[in-house]
Amino acid sequence: MRFTTYLKDGQPHVGVLDGALVVPVTSDLRRALEAGTDLLAAGRAALASDAPRVPLAELTLAPLVPEPGKIICLGLNYFDHAKEGGREKPEYPWFFYRGKSSLLSHGAAGVVPRVSAKFDYEAELALVIGTKVPRHVSQADALKHVFGYTCFNDMSVRDYQKRTPQWTIGKNFDATGGFGPVLVTADELAPGATGLTIQSRLNGQMMQHATTSDMIWGVAETISLLSECMTLEPGDVIAMGTPAGVGQARTPPVWMKAGDVIEVEIERIGTLVNPISNEA
Amino acid sequence: MRFTTYLKDGQPHVGVLDGALVVPVTSDLRRALEAGTDLLAAGRAALASDAPRVPLAELTLAPLVPEPGKIICLGLNYFDHAKEGGREKPEYPWFFYRGKSSLLSHGAAGVVPRVSAKFDYEAELALVIGTKVPRHVSQADALKHVFGYTCFNDMSVRDYQKRTPQWTIGKNFDATGGFGPVLVTADELAPGATGLTIQSRLNGQMMQHATTSDMIWGVAETISLLSECMTLEPGDVIAMGTPAGVGQARTPPVWMKAGDVIEVEIERIGTLVNPISNEA
Repeated sequence: MRFTTYLKDGQPHVGVLDGALVVPVTSDLRRALEAGTDLLAAGRAALASDAPRVPLAELTLAPLVPEPGKIICLGLNYFDHAKEGGREKPEYPWFFYRGKSSLLSHGAAGVVPRVSAKFDYEAELALVIGTKVPRHVSQADALKHVFGYTCFNDMSVRDYQKRTPQWTIGKNFDATGGFGPVLVTADELAPGATGLTIQSRLNGQMMQHATTSDMIWGVAETISLLSECMTLEPGDVIAMGTPAGVGQARTPPVWMKAGDVIEVEIERIGTLVNPISNEA
Repeated sequence: MRFTTYLKDGQPHVGVLDGALVVPVTSDLRRALEAGTDLLAAGRAALASDAPRVPLAELTLAPLVPEPGKIICLGLNYFDHAKEGGREKPEYPWFFYRGKSSLLSHGAAGVVPRVSAKFDYEAELALVIGTKVPRHVSQADALKHVFGYTCFNDMSVRDYQKRTPQWTIGKNFDATGGFGPVLVTADELAPGATGLTIQSRLNGQMMQHATTSDMIWGVAETISLLSECMTLEPGDVIAMGTPAGVGQARTPPVWMKAGDVIEVEIERIGTLVNPISNEA
């Protein structure tokens, strides 16, 4: 099943996809998951109803989860990307967080900040936690807590990312974390969403091309590792890292600029499209 | 004026302090700030009312803001702490984020995780943003957006903090971010809450002792720097870093263990007390 979050009278609303049409389901994905709502049943009921459908293309989307409790990102989770940055294969994920003010809807503009021109893309698989994950969950039990998968663009302000060893600030500029447009429930994909082609295209030109099977830490292992440290809660988001081909590793470097269009496509999930504009 | 957040029927509630007594004001500090509520006026009205008072000591507290939109922490913001870790004076703050699942109420137990015994304390001044901060705010205009100040204990799982260059995971274990007990509104303190003695005590023994004037980046400068990158929103929290004296820098190192009591006291603000227990 495929869900999206769109704006209706300025408020986020969750709908289920009926082909290219959207049927309303509930008001907020995170709140519904926290309440234990059976969203697959709610989605089926919506699809079976004669509620009016609106074409997805006519809706203004919101980030899939407008305010996750936490947004955890993995750095260096594809070996070829670690290598292009001159790094060894990591022995533990380089976790960092994003805040909600960095999130960006499908279709909205990723913003080149006034203070930097080194604005880069990163195509990533992201997942949304569906049910509270017990501490110290095994890899075998981890995947049952994943509600679904979507596309993420972990747009990065590279000079700020590297001003100190902590990458966080370069990953938290406003309107830099593309997230959506569609969440595909876990039952529709291979366990851990492996085997999917992931790519980014800048102005139609392929920049990154890999498969989610290349991730060093898969989804089950990542959830299990995180559960050693913290409670993962419904609506939490994990962005699984990016493969090789980012702009900063090219010769000469490629930076996104106003007027560009950046796309992240993941097989069987969809395509996240963001135009690029300058900060006002 | 002094506010606190306590649990009433399992839900957070904000009260204003009338000496050692608490008078109910509103349901959630962040929501009230987002709605533009004049909390000083609401506090004055509550204090003038004959609403029943409950002793602060009899309440079960919650984190002051149970779910901030973001929790931004500064690393190495006291030069003597940078030095004790063998580091130079930083040229830019080492920002990292916490998520809400890491927050801890005054009086609740800080948890030594199963996977590590290297559990350290960090006394910090924290602030809560009151009104949306315009991007690129000047230092001169920054402080008007601070609602108030409180104590923070940025408890750190040191081996996880150092597993990779990204500190985030070691700062995000469950029940490690002590936050409270009382928020003192900005009008009651010097601009930027400078000149306040800050200390931590482990089982009554002084471990850290400094003044908030020793911070490399003050509150106004930090807000101005962050506003180059992102929108700070009502209820956002900034933890301003810790002075020298942490456990890992001692010979031999001092780690917190079950049965300990750790206190963070900031002059004119209050004392945050947390017992330490083992993860269940």
